[in-house]
Amino acid sequence: METMDDDGTARRAPDVRSRLHGSALKLFREHGISGTTLQMIADDLGVTKAAVYYHYRTKDEIVLGVVSPLMEGLRRVVELAEAQRGHRARVEVALTGLADLTVRAREVYAVLTGDPSIPHVGRLSPEFAEVGRRVVDVLSGPDPSPQTRVRVTLLLSGLVGPLKDPECARIDDDALRTLLVDAGRRLLHQRS
Amino acid sequence: METMDDDGTARRAPDVRSRLHGSALKLFREHGISGTTLQMIADDLGVTKAAVYYHYRTKDEIVLGVVSPLMEGLRRVVELAEAQRGHRARVEVALTGLADLTVRAREVYAVLTGDPSIPHVGRLSPEFAEVGRRVVDVLSGPDPSPQTRVRVTLLLSGLVGPLKDPECARIDDDALRTLLVDAGRRLLHQRS
Repeated sequence: METMDDDGTARRAPDVRSRLHGSALKLFREHGISGTTLQMIADDLGVTKAAVYYHYRTKDEIVLGVVSPLMEGLRRVVELAEAQRGHRARVEVALTGLADLTVRAREVYAVLTGDPSIPHVGRLSPEFAEVGRRVVDVLSGPDPSPQTRVRVTLLLSGLVGPLKDPECARIDDDALRTLLVDAGRRLLHQRS
Repeated sequence: METMDDDGTARRAPDVRSRLHGSALKLFREHGISGTTLQMIADDLGVTKAAVYYHYRTKDEIVLGVVSPLMEGLRRVVELAEAQRGHRARVEVALTGLADLTVRAREVYAVLTGDPSIPHVGRLSPEFAEVGRRVVDVLSGPDPSPQTRVRVTLLLSGLVGPLKDPECARIDDDALRTLLVDAGRRLLHQRS
């Protein structure tokens, strides 16, 4: 058994993991998640099935692995936002970070939500749910009114909307990022 | 075999269907969808399992049945909106109708999304997907800019956001309806 870090991840093999995620994502896209086996991932990487199995025991774990860079990104965004002084600055930093993550999530998102066999990621990972709550809080500010709370939760749930839309698929990444921030500002900032 | 209408539904038994939906929803809430059997629904209604089976062959069909009043509502909203003159009026009618449906969906939504065994309703029903596209179109207006398209798809995907939020659960139906329309106006109307 190889050594794990305290948090249970094998830090020694970031490269293998990241290649594994890339391979899994590619195969998920081609064959669906349910149509992809650990053996196919192993073949694609040119390693043994045992090598894949060392990193991930189940497909749910692989899905979480594929999503984990986004979750880490979300955590960084929320920490950076929380560190700002003043609600308006926190909202700006959070919006910019969220728009960027949404654009980066385009590829992952299309795969994960296209597959009926995959439960919502928030259910697979309580950690993800916890970061999500902090994002709601930083965007809402202290003692939010019901109005603010509705706008914030609508925005967060809405960010993936354009990713599902075939027309929005034609918008390039930079433009999409700008439009998402713009929509967030419209919803959340008081008009000055 | 009893007579069906052209569209394949048994119009003769709207009452049974509506009682069946109520019973299914109640049991789904208590036991989860996967923990609810056709037999349990039959027992709850005080009918035979065959009577339930006459209406619905699979649980997916029951889920669609439970959702169908919302889909019919959505269709009415989009038809009413399409019949208005002028884009602004169409958006207003669509927003008001969508906010109302969202509030009415509160109970159904909580059950359906709480269960990992249920695929997205849009995948179960192409008809639902089609009505969804018309809603996007009526809110976007003719030749929408990418900005408009992003705002519309964000709004539509976002409407369920407050339904998932424990804080928003405390907002009463009328207030929630108003706040959803308000958020929609902020996103979609040009400032005058």
